[in-house]
Amino acid sequence: MGEVFGVRRGRLREQCAANGGGAVLVSRPANVRYLAGAAPHGAVLLLGPGEDVLLCPYTADSADGRPDEALRVAVLPGSAGDPAVAGAEFARTAGADSLAVEEHHLTVARHRAVRSVAPRIRLTDIGHSVEQLRLVKDEEEIACLRIAAEITDQALGELLESILVGRTERHLALELERRLVDHGADGPAFPTSVATGPNSGRAAHRPSDRRVEEGDFLTVCLGADYRGYRCEIGRTFVIGTTPADWQIELYDLVFAAQRAGREALVPGAACRDVDRAARQILDAAGHGDGLSAATGHGVGLEIDEDPQLTPVAMGKLDACVPVTVEPGVHLPGRGGVRIDDTLVVRQEADGGPELLTITTKELLAL
Amino acid sequence: MGEVFGVRRGRLREQCAANGGGAVLVSRPANVRYLAGAAPHGAVLLLGPGEDVLLCPYTADSADGRPDEALRVAVLPGSAGDPAVAGAEFARTAGADSLAVEEHHLTVARHRAVRSVAPRIRLTDIGHSVEQLRLVKDEEEIACLRIAAEITDQALGELLESILVGRTERHLALELERRLVDHGADGPAFPTSVATGPNSGRAAHRPSDRRVEEGDFLTVCLGADYRGYRCEIGRTFVIGTTPADWQIELYDLVFAAQRAGREALVPGAACRDVDRAARQILDAAGHGDGLSAATGHGVGLEIDEDPQLTPVAMGKLDACVPVTVEPGVHLPGRGGVRIDDTLVVRQEADGGPELLTITTKELLAL
Repeated sequence: MGEVFGVRRGRLREQCAANGGGAVLVSRPANVRYLAGAAPHGAVLLLGPGEDVLLCPYTADSADGRPDEALRVAVLPGSAGDPAVAGAEFARTAGADSLAVEEHHLTVARHRAVRSVAPRIRLTDIGHSVEQLRLVKDEEEIACLRIAAEITDQALGELLESILVGRTERHLALELERRLVDHGADGPAFPTSVATGPNSGRAAHRPSDRRVEEGDFLTVCLGADYRGYRCEIGRTFVIGTTPADWQIELYDLVFAAQRAGREALVPGAACRDVDRAARQILDAAGHGDGLSAATGHGVGLEIDEDPQLTPVAMGKLDACVPVTVEPGVHLPGRGGVRIDDTLVVRQEADGGPELLTITTKELLAL
Repeated sequence: MGEVFGVRRGRLREQCAANGGGAVLVSRPANVRYLAGAAPHGAVLLLGPGEDVLLCPYTADSADGRPDEALRVAVLPGSAGDPAVAGAEFARTAGADSLAVEEHHLTVARHRAVRSVAPRIRLTDIGHSVEQLRLVKDEEEIACLRIAAEITDQALGELLESILVGRTERHLALELERRLVDHGADGPAFPTSVATGPNSGRAAHRPSDRRVEEGDFLTVCLGADYRGYRCEIGRTFVIGTTPADWQIELYDLVFAAQRAGREALVPGAACRDVDRAARQILDAAGHGDGLSAATGHGVGLEIDEDPQLTPVAMGKLDACVPVTVEPGVHLPGRGGVRIDDTLVVRQEADGGPELLTITTKELLAL
């Protein structure tokens, strides 16, 4: 695994520091982890012109993997302050004539501090270069996502076998997170959402003390973090023996929208077309106004990364890009439905989109 | 409670926008919450020169309280992009001649976008003005911290009554977080740390699959989030009937250092002197090198806020400032001890520092 990080750093260096005297300072944690193998809290990564170095405050210890052994690791004393500033000093000492930083991550104040220690170095912006490298996953990354999805399906499957009526959203969410860890997750990929009755169908609903009642819709959204790779599943169930007609109709509608979104996942498809495929079905049914801004998004070392599946998204999908497809409708006061899968875009010849989260999408009455 | 937010906004406006045409854009979430009563994800707060407005992307829903009703709330459509940019447009429309932003929070890229929509408005920096306002807590804030500490003591106390040997750090941490919620916490104030055997005593150790064994030191650090206010407690126990001599010696040493730190908490004390009071005891015993950069820190709407109790800290303590005192020693390969309390600085006449986390600090053998 070690050499993959060196290869990634090499690709970034080609893009951002073509001339020999250019250095690159990576500060966004997920980007540091992608290039260095680990991102100890507060660590930044400096690429060349001398050797590459991971600058860590206090300690290189990290719960998320070990730094690439091919990388020099500098642990800064507590008094050293901002590792980004220390990185700029390293670049200056190494004779860099330019330093490319992540202007979408560095704050104005940190950027000023970096400039002040290296006034003669030209500061440039690498923009989202590392995020772009992260878009297309290699098979090792996809394998981690596959395991994360298996763990997630297991945790959800166990919950469905337990008694739900009378339990609060908060406790169901905590139990799901415990089960994720039981099955080998490093932790939840994001705060688990459990939404009952009038809360059901709301995007990213934070669990409350409301208890599950007969006749409720129950929407659950969870995901495992496995070796830093994060997936997402969302399902909506009905509590009790027989769903009401409006529940069946709404479920079928959201299911149709979600399927249309999944079926639009082909290499070369425009991100906005995938969004439209799902959105127009909900729109045509009169639910256009309340919809989330995005139908889905990329996943990987972050739970919400590029590409974004929105009406205003630019760009096209590539093979080996994992994304979520997660349309939902929420009717104020009544509740609603969300259905959310994590899939990997694949060529038709390879069988089309690879579904990672395989829990059934039939409307289950629990 | 409502009017308190208006009072806080008034104090900030006095500081930052003395002249009538000045506007202030607050983007750091904890600062937005302090001034607006809630911080929906991504929301920013614009103060004057017209009316104050909370700009929220997509929805004003927030798990953490409701926005102050005296405040205008503008929910932006999904296509509106960065609320900070929308805030700058509001300021321009309201005829602001200057806009003070949080340069320590806004990224270089966001700052540029703000400038581009309001090129004629002078952008200034309010620095840590809101963090400064947040330093001294009012009695309502301290009441929330007191409840958070009670919840935390309850969760820890229950754990001590259960069987520990054979259970993993991960599962103990999850159980503690479940108990926090059982007792009314909105959630954990930070990721719960459970460290056994050779891991014990490490700052912010992320729980692993190691199981509790006879003879281990067990270090636990947890805290509740109650209405956004976060406290912290850390304790170290020994597993089994009788601690080893080295364990007793090390525990007594760290206890003495922690007590010295607590006793140094008086209004007017220099933050660095509080740090020194604890640090020098560990230093004199030969543990100076491995120590954390800080002996403690402020708590409130964030678990780690000003003041910082470090050797390089500037500034003095005021009454009604809640801080942690949390020295620790970790012996590589053997483990160690951390003892962590949350206290409120009080005048001698008021009884001196108010201890919020009251779980015993005797060395318990479990």
